[in-house]
Amino acid sequence: MRFTTEQHLEHGVLERRFTLGEVPGILWTPETRTPGPAPAPLILLGHPGGLDRMYPRLVARARSAAARGFASATIELPGSGDRPPIAVVEQARADLRQALRAGTPVGDDLVDRLILPLADRAVPEWRALLDALLARPGIGGPVGYAGGVIAIGTRLAVTEPRLAAAVLFAGSFVPRVTFEEARNVDIPLLVLLQWDDHGNDRQQALDLFDAFGTTEKTLHANLGGHTGVPQFEADDGDRFFARHLN
Amino acid sequence: MRFTTEQHLEHGVLERRFTLGEVPGILWTPETRTPGPAPAPLILLGHPGGLDRMYPRLVARARSAAARGFASATIELPGSGDRPPIAVVEQARADLRQALRAGTPVGDDLVDRLILPLADRAVPEWRALLDALLARPGIGGPVGYAGGVIAIGTRLAVTEPRLAAAVLFAGSFVPRVTFEEARNVDIPLLVLLQWDDHGNDRQQALDLFDAFGTTEKTLHANLGGHTGVPQFEADDGDRFFARHLN
Repeated sequence: MRFTTEQHLEHGVLERRFTLGEVPGILWTPETRTPGPAPAPLILLGHPGGLDRMYPRLVARARSAAARGFASATIELPGSGDRPPIAVVEQARADLRQALRAGTPVGDDLVDRLILPLADRAVPEWRALLDALLARPGIGGPVGYAGGVIAIGTRLAVTEPRLAAAVLFAGSFVPRVTFEEARNVDIPLLVLLQWDDHGNDRQQALDLFDAFGTTEKTLHANLGGHTGVPQFEADDGDRFFARHLN
Repeated sequence: MRFTTEQHLEHGVLERRFTLGEVPGILWTPETRTPGPAPAPLILLGHPGGLDRMYPRLVARARSAAARGFASATIELPGSGDRPPIAVVEQARADLRQALRAGTPVGDDLVDRLILPLADRAVPEWRALLDALLARPGIGGPVGYAGGVIAIGTRLAVTEPRLAAAVLFAGSFVPRVTFEEARNVDIPLLVLLQWDDHGNDRQQALDLFDAFGTTEKTLHANLGGHTGVPQFEADDGDRFFARHLN
């Protein structure tokens, strides 16, 4: 892990950009947290790809987390931003645009081709990020995951034992295998659903919430489209993490 | 409105029992609120009937509200507790028990006979309670409604202009007319749903959430049965009211 830039944001948040191997990322830590007693719990901020495009939402989320004493970190999604494109995913995205233009249904096979190559690559990268961050002083477990690409968050929840709680955004295509993996999730979940997310299937999101095997799960559904998650849900998510990570 | 008993609960909450005409009720007010600047916003606490049986949950809810500076109040449901039984409702309840024993579906007509006589009587009583309470010093609008019998909460939301926000518990039978009334609700709503409430129809609750006409509505669904609403939802409800009543 190599830090490339460092910036002091207002309200005592330190933002450091880094690369982990070839993967760019950002780490936010609360500067006001008194060193010594306990390391800051860490929240991994998932997103649909494109760090620059997602930056305003990510930094807002990180500031909110830092106000509660949480560190947070994110990395670029495979094949997004400045990372080399993934040929099979590029082809699947072209097929998706074609299907949406033609008004034909987006089939399970296309969803698999769109999402699974990303999940297969991203999950090991998030785990390597955890290895690198938890080796640093001042950042410690337990760890939360918050954000999008629900196939990635679900896979991470079943494969990464250091993950103690997750806020998952049910706003992306769901591969069939994610339903199977969901049954093995046993950490507390808060699932966010935008009720009028026209690009996504509401019933499928409800079915996925039903499928999660954990005994502690909450669904928050709000009116509005894909990008309309209300600001108060960031606070709700932080309070959820405060219950489970502290 | 005639006060009958007065009790100082711990953490500075004053509990006063009263009768409003023939209807018994309870008012909780925060004693620590400094008099003068602004009256305490009021939350009406709905419930499925039986004040004595519901008291532990109601007083817990009232304490939580008082900690945020809210007054709260409740009245006995028509035909419940010490109030005179309502013949048509008693007959409907007997028919319901019969249907549940026999495993036959609970039809729309039976739901209407169970719920509508209660809503027809209860809504004017809640409105009379508002008239009485808002005439008192130290208690003021805007007003919230929190709790069960969603047909009553929905009817109140469309008929009572002083109601500014509501937390509705989707855990009771829903008469058909409630779906029509729901479309006219235009105040912010937080709807609570217990995901495994075997006595109630999950899909119907989701359909009702969808039907509410307001532009600001949030659904919180939690794992567990009818009486298993997690404690943190009381806090979430108070934060919802703090956003809309302050």
